[in-house]
Amino acid sequence: MAQNIYDDPGFFAGYSELPRSVHGLKGAPEWPTIETLLPEMRGLRVLDLGCGFGWFCRWARANGAAHVLGLDLSENMLARAKTETPDGAITYQRADLDHLELPKAAFELAYSSLALHYVENLGRLFATVHQALVPGGQFVFSIEHPIYMAPREPRWLVDGQGRMTWPLDSYQIEGPRRTNWLAEGVLKQHRTMGTTLNLLIQHGFSISHVNEWGPTDEQIAAEPELAEERERPTFLIIAAERRER
Amino acid sequence: MAQNIYDDPGFFAGYSELPRSVHGLKGAPEWPTIETLLPEMRGLRVLDLGCGFGWFCRWARANGAAHVLGLDLSENMLARAKTETPDGAITYQRADLDHLELPKAAFELAYSSLALHYVENLGRLFATVHQALVPGGQFVFSIEHPIYMAPREPRWLVDGQGRMTWPLDSYQIEGPRRTNWLAEGVLKQHRTMGTTLNLLIQHGFSISHVNEWGPTDEQIAAEPELAEERERPTFLIIAAERRER
Repeated sequence: MAQNIYDDPGFFAGYSELPRSVHGLKGAPEWPTIETLLPEMRGLRVLDLGCGFGWFCRWARANGAAHVLGLDLSENMLARAKTETPDGAITYQRADLDHLELPKAAFELAYSSLALHYVENLGRLFATVHQALVPGGQFVFSIEHPIYMAPREPRWLVDGQGRMTWPLDSYQIEGPRRTNWLAEGVLKQHRTMGTTLNLLIQHGFSISHVNEWGPTDEQIAAEPELAEERERPTFLIIAAERRER
Repeated sequence: MAQNIYDDPGFFAGYSELPRSVHGLKGAPEWPTIETLLPEMRGLRVLDLGCGFGWFCRWARANGAAHVLGLDLSENMLARAKTETPDGAITYQRADLDHLELPKAAFELAYSSLALHYVENLGRLFATVHQALVPGGQFVFSIEHPIYMAPREPRWLVDGQGRMTWPLDSYQIEGPRRTNWLAEGVLKQHRTMGTTLNLLIQHGFSISHVNEWGPTDEQIAAEPELAEERERPTFLIIAAERRER
């Protein structure tokens, strides 16, 4: 079972104050990139793996999705998502992505934002999502980039000229990573980019697009601290499609 | 036109002494991984982009390939390849991969080892390879990994405990990288992994496998200095297939 860190009171309080929690999709600098990879929402049945406060579920409905199923492990997040969603075509449900069961061919789109790096058995989840999509259905998700997650000590080094470098190591050593981010001992699963892509391919997906997210010039002009994201990617965004078999 | 560094006398002399030049495929630690991604050679028409001394061309023929076309920009390397290859079913030809023209549907396999990171217009080359393959034809290649190529100062940092980290920066800043490796000012082209994968997809390939090469335990036991390759990948190996259209 995945660690339920979002129900840790300190973590939840800290997470609730992040720009992406306060401002929703607009508070997430990678959202404009994700949006370009999403299909037209009209009429789609949509699955959101790790829906959090439900921002994406509501966006999908506002853009015409027929139904949205939002899944999350955190009772705190689901409670707030339900409170803020007066929409009968969105269903929120508690689920552990490591033990998820889904109906067959029930969705045209599966989406996930920054949740799958908590999953221990990613191959099992990909197989579950594959059978839950219709043939040709799309799967668009973001995770923390393995370059960001791999190091023993993930923090910037700054040289005498103020230039930042990211001290990468342990990239090939896959498995758990514990960091202190909003709470102590947050548990994530490091996998190389190759491993994530190959798991998708093995489980019947074809890769449509791979984005190692970086900010645009306009984003840096508006928010200069984003410039450091040019040095190494924080997010990996993948679009894939359920292959016909 | 790509820089013809392999015909620089100092570079050529240094390159000729590398294990992969002296021992061929067996001198390249990533070769066993590449080999698992290659199809059965029997009867195939094979293209080798950047064939160097012709090691792979001869291996393909020894494993039953019907014909092999080896292309390289370096006259030094082609001269030696020709001298060492008493085989009429291998053709060596001088070519600049940035201006390559190839016949249509003439090959079942395109292969390239550590050459495509010298190419400026990779999209053009992928389009050329695509139309030169038969539908369903395979494209297997290695390049320097962008993690290895990106940094301003690509060299290990070693801490007080002897632990090595790779100072990554400039990952999102694509374009030329000049390094001093065997000669001064060797010119390579940095692209993110996402860019290389998306160029393949855009030009009609489906991604079959992505390997960010790292050594096995057996390889490290036999050659302990390979252990540092666990910290960050040096090679990126991709297998793709020409999609039917």
